[in-house]
Amino acid sequence: MKILLTACLAAGTLFAQVSYDRLRNAAREPASWLTYSGDYQSHHYSALNQINHSNVNRLKVAWMYQTRGRQHVETTPLVFDGVMYLTDPPSDVTALDLRTGRPIWHYRRGIPEGISVCCGQVNRGVAVLDDQLFIGTIDSHLVALDLKSGRVRWDVPVADPKLGYSMTAAPLALKNKIIVGVAGAEYGVRGFLDAYDPKTGKRAWRFWTTPAPGEPGNETWSGDSWKNGGATTWLTGSYDPELNLLYWGAGNPSPNYNGQSRQGDNLYSDSVIALDAGTGKLKWHFQFVPHDLHDIDSNQIPVLLDAEYGGRRRKLMLFANRNAFYYLLDRATGEFLLAKPFAKQTWAKSIDPRGRPVKNEASAPSEKGALVYPDDDGTSNWFSPSYSPRTKLFYQNVREKGAMYFLTEAQYQTGRMYLGATKRNLTDEEPYGALRAWNALTGEPAWEFKVHTPPWCGLLATGGDLVFSGTMEGDFFALNATNGKLLWRIQTGAEIWSNPISYQHEGKQYIAVVAGSTLITFAVE
Amino acid sequence: MKILLTACLAAGTLFAQVSYDRLRNAAREPASWLTYSGDYQSHHYSALNQINHSNVNRLKVAWMYQTRGRQHVETTPLVFDGVMYLTDPPSDVTALDLRTGRPIWHYRRGIPEGISVCCGQVNRGVAVLDDQLFIGTIDSHLVALDLKSGRVRWDVPVADPKLGYSMTAAPLALKNKIIVGVAGAEYGVRGFLDAYDPKTGKRAWRFWTTPAPGEPGNETWSGDSWKNGGATTWLTGSYDPELNLLYWGAGNPSPNYNGQSRQGDNLYSDSVIALDAGTGKLKWHFQFVPHDLHDIDSNQIPVLLDAEYGGRRRKLMLFANRNAFYYLLDRATGEFLLAKPFAKQTWAKSIDPRGRPVKNEASAPSEKGALVYPDDDGTSNWFSPSYSPRTKLFYQNVREKGAMYFLTEAQYQTGRMYLGATKRNLTDEEPYGALRAWNALTGEPAWEFKVHTPPWCGLLATGGDLVFSGTMEGDFFALNATNGKLLWRIQTGAEIWSNPISYQHEGKQYIAVVAGSTLITFAVE
Repeated sequence: MKILLTACLAAGTLFAQVSYDRLRNAAREPASWLTYSGDYQSHHYSALNQINHSNVNRLKVAWMYQTRGRQHVETTPLVFDGVMYLTDPPSDVTALDLRTGRPIWHYRRGIPEGISVCCGQVNRGVAVLDDQLFIGTIDSHLVALDLKSGRVRWDVPVADPKLGYSMTAAPLALKNKIIVGVAGAEYGVRGFLDAYDPKTGKRAWRFWTTPAPGEPGNETWSGDSWKNGGATTWLTGSYDPELNLLYWGAGNPSPNYNGQSRQGDNLYSDSVIALDAGTGKLKWHFQFVPHDLHDIDSNQIPVLLDAEYGGRRRKLMLFANRNAFYYLLDRATGEFLLAKPFAKQTWAKSIDPRGRPVKNEASAPSEKGALVYPDDDGTSNWFSPSYSPRTKLFYQNVREKGAMYFLTEAQYQTGRMYLGATKRNLTDEEPYGALRAWNALTGEPAWEFKVHTPPWCGLLATGGDLVFSGTMEGDFFALNATNGKLLWRIQTGAEIWSNPISYQHEGKQYIAVVAGSTLITFAVE
Repeated sequence: MKILLTACLAAGTLFAQVSYDRLRNAAREPASWLTYSGDYQSHHYSALNQINHSNVNRLKVAWMYQTRGRQHVETTPLVFDGVMYLTDPPSDVTALDLRTGRPIWHYRRGIPEGISVCCGQVNRGVAVLDDQLFIGTIDSHLVALDLKSGRVRWDVPVADPKLGYSMTAAPLALKNKIIVGVAGAEYGVRGFLDAYDPKTGKRAWRFWTTPAPGEPGNETWSGDSWKNGGATTWLTGSYDPELNLLYWGAGNPSPNYNGQSRQGDNLYSDSVIALDAGTGKLKWHFQFVPHDLHDIDSNQIPVLLDAEYGGRRRKLMLFANRNAFYYLLDRATGEFLLAKPFAKQTWAKSIDPRGRPVKNEASAPSEKGALVYPDDDGTSNWFSPSYSPRTKLFYQNVREKGAMYFLTEAQYQTGRMYLGATKRNLTDEEPYGALRAWNALTGEPAWEFKVHTPPWCGLLATGGDLVFSGTMEGDFFALNATNGKLLWRIQTGAEIWSNPISYQHEGKQYIAVVAGSTLITFAVE
């Protein structure tokens, strides 16, 4: 009797635990994908090199898993110890057996009616620590799941969804803290970043990204505007264990586009903040766009790199901002080192020597309409860049698109959209996209690979000197990481809205990506 | 500038027309898949042999297309002249460019609220004739679409959905008629089979499958029971152009399970009917199950075969009935030749020499419950069998599952379920499935390949002596058609509820199947 395999569990090798030590050394364990950005440095890079220039043309689908999500599953899976952990909208988790591709368990979360989400009920993934997974839910709870069974260990409310808060980012697990951010700036919430005890779900600290009176930075908000000031924290940050500093991007100030009611720089909107991971105290901040009028969320992934720079070894941060500039900062001090445009932009005339933009006032939304590049989807956005220590290039998917913005009044109402402009797309120009590579330390362009539609997919560079990406037309492809030459591609049949990863199972390297609502894994025969 | 391909049209080779002559000779054009069952004989067989025992282990995903359907897209695509035509629920059609896998056009049909469908809003595919596609919609319209643009040419109502009618089957295109059946026996509709003029949408004829007073067969229904007698025609039939006879299966009598109100044989429920294609007049019929009490829809695909039988060349029909018997009939006359069980069954003690069952009265639903094999999902069902002229074997996916039925009253109410029993699954027995192969002329078993869960997937035998099938666990696999040995498989990540097909494009053979909601094509590198 021949029965095709269904999922079955072997208690032996599956469900080992993921200690903080494994997380800290994730880059040295390339067979796994242990944290959202691959490692605390957020290189989103895999050192695996079994798939390389010599065989990538023989890459083929190994197995698939079709989620219950509709189109647009924006997740990044975690993989370790024989199991893949995948989320699908709104806030569900599935554990998949790497041997068969079949589910081991599902966590299905019922979601209350009337959740306000500006940009889709997406979920970007889970964090793991010891024997638990952590997910931030669309109704703003943080939930700890048993790694082995998917059962809920604890479930705590983080914020009130009725105010417009939601959670879409993968949490970040540190030694004894689970860090979570929130979304909702489009609804005029007040942003914050939270840390929770992984064992109990008790909150350890909260850092408000719009300071209250008496706190430094409150003076950058006129009147009470800080109360609904946005600056949310809806993407996963990075961590330097040596400095014990947490790096996190903060989003646009609220209301979007219209700054009349919020005079001032509006800290810490459009900033990267460096917090003491133990206390949540601010160590330094760098604001990319003071008094933002263009929805330039600066939630992008802070990429951490230790390198020789200006004649000495420095702890650097690489940051490809949605505003079309690539920044280098000293991540110990927040010192500004470099800003270099990597796409068309018209909002700034220049960046001054201290890193502050000289704005182009003509691009501010107005009654008669103002043209600005990039549009409010940004040049970069949520999708991950990648850094390869082999090529020393920084890889970024880039959106080349402008739009017209017409100023409107913005009136705060609880739980309602809090926007100060309407948008009109350009009819006389075709937007496009490109995967661009540049020297990580200078921003000097190396190459680009253009695509038809501005992309919404993250990048993965590998030790095989490949870069993987996907398009809105459904192509998943591999480029030569050195020169951008197309080496392989496959049509997956749906828009690709996710971050590819790589892992190794039973001695074989796999690439995994979600296309549309389907997880696809690839390997060379 | 390197731009990954999006769909683009080359008016040259695409969108040739599909004449009746091509349909009639479909078996001689294996590069295409021109009609639901592959050809009028419904062999669901591809003569292509580029993929065979020597290379099937190198079969890989060529491209995919993710439909908007949720799980369970039950369609069979058509493929010809560089384009694939795919339906997804409820009644949408997409044209895909074979060169890129990308959509050329979509037909999206808005469906009114409150459509009653017993068993899911599935759609099984389109028919093509000349420059038009034809789809039967879930709200019981027949729609003609322009092949090139997907625009509606005409749209005619076939039946009233408020009465419980729906359409799920692919139409069958003949020389100058489009044949469509209806579903809805669970709602006590009166079954029929219709023919329409392909140019105008005007109805050419209708054959009622429950005869009115004065028509032959009405005497097999007590009282007015024929008026709500079911016997629907919800799967695609076959056609013999020489005899100009159309062969179609008819479903269960209504009410299901409880025969008290419908004394008699209940013609033409659970029958195969042979109609003159020009007039819709009945030529002959063969009833598999008189006075059915077990929901033994006999809508399975009539497979037509010309072969030496009993010492002379005969026009045969092979019919693997949901009731677990495999029948051979003379399709010119309707003469019964053979019935042989191919799965466990308890509803009949035997089949008499004229093909009429001797029923097991203990299996009739009763107040205290009656056990019966197969259950109401049948041993076979909608999913296609396959016949290979090379191995001369008949291939059928088989469900091995029984259940208990408890008699209830059945009261007809317009548009409501009209059932006379409740069902209880067995707890002390694990159902299973098998792909079985038997000698098409004798029914003698050749081999079987067991699978874990009773399957819901059709079969494709090929000229490479392979049989393709899929499981409820998501495996799509190829067997050696001669001995049933597993040669290749892949995990597709969702239940497979469709019929695989094969086609050739630019000199290369492809296998295509829908798994879950994703169309996947396979080829050897």
